Amino acid sequence: MNRPQPVEKMIEEIKKLPGVGPKMAERLSYHILKMCQNEIDRLIDSIQKARQTTICCSICYNLSDHDPCFICSDVTREQDIICVVETSQDLIAVSKVKNYRGLYFVLGGALSPLDAIGPDDIRIDKLMERLKNSSINEVIIATDTDSKGEMTAVCIAEVIKKLGTKVTRLGYGLPVGGDIEYADEVTISRAIAGRTEM
Amino acid sequence: MNRPQPVEKMIEEIKKLPGVGPKMAERLSYHILKMCQNEIDRLIDSIQKARQTTICCSICYNLSDHDPCFICSDVTREQDIICVVETSQDLIAVSKVKNYRGLYFVLGGALSPLDAIGPDDIRIDKLMERLKNSSINEVIIATDTDSKGEMTAVCIAEVIKKLGTKVTRLGYGLPVGGDIEYADEVTISRAIAGRTEM
Repeated sequence: MNRPQPVEKMIEEIKKLPGVGPKMAERLSYHILKMCQNEIDRLIDSIQKARQTTICCSICYNLSDHDPCFICSDVTREQDIICVVETSQDLIAVSKVKNYRGLYFVLGGALSPLDAIGPDDIRIDKLMERLKNSSINEVIIATDTDSKGEMTAVCIAEVIKKLGTKVTRLGYGLPVGGDIEYADEVTISRAIAGRTEM
Repeated sequence: MNRPQPVEKMIEEIKKLPGVGPKMAERLSYHILKMCQNEIDRLIDSIQKARQTTICCSICYNLSDHDPCFICSDVTREQDIICVVETSQDLIAVSKVKNYRGLYFVLGGALSPLDAIGPDDIRIDKLMERLKNSSINEVIIATDTDSKGEMTAVCIAEVIKKLGTKVTRLGYGLPVGGDIEYADEVTISRAIAGRTEM
């Protein structure tokens, strides 16, 4: 391999990022070597600033630059309904929706026995604490619909029901704009079960 | 959009990298926010070190940490044959092949009239200068096999032939329309064995 050692090192570090394979790491590295110093400074500065100023909201655990975050401190939002998501990215996706104006809670992951991630590794206890000390009367569970997300939803629902709080799950069905031909059997089966009158 | 402003800024900067779309930029950004400070320091440090220590060899224009680079200063290599490539990445790809032990020249791109990249924007004059002042008697053109690379090859071949130097092109073991950077070693090796005079 005829590459200068510092370039190899940069490729190695970039390859550690998620979704970046060896070829992509090379491509990014050679691009970075061609960027002007201003551009590179802006990139590095944006990373360092984001790291320094971003904190976890102590109420919902969403990433924020204030504590409590602007969702938790927004008194115009419905204070009796909470949407539970796995990650901050999921929260962003749900927050784009106009017909939900309640609160949020970020679990920080999903249960995954194979990866040794159990109930103590995600914030189930913090969620319970919050529910006990608030006037929330409905929890919408919006974990992923893969096996880990499903398992997490079932586990959380069981614990919450003991508090006497209503628990709901995002509806299953066909994605809007989708093609029935390409939908999998499980999704179609759920869509039939959840059919609505026209 | 409910994201802290510095996180938005980081996503914007990362989105400027080649092959990184909006979703990928988000994924990388959230990953970076979760990385420990040591990891982030290593990543940034590797980028800055690579930028600071990497120079262009004044003979072949390959990226290097020495001038002349270790290929140009290696007297055991065949000194009468030179392989012309578009980029340093292409040079790395060719250098993995065992049946080529000659020298290199990196053009720094390919002709592309649509992007207003003409003969003065790549190092054709530097290549001619080098050929005139050396004992090179064969030039292997290893530009990409897409239309820009082909055009570049034809243009360079014409000028070189006027010097009376033999010009060859990598054999079509290469898939047409492909990119040398992504070709596998066996394919490149076949292409070198089957090179043809232009």
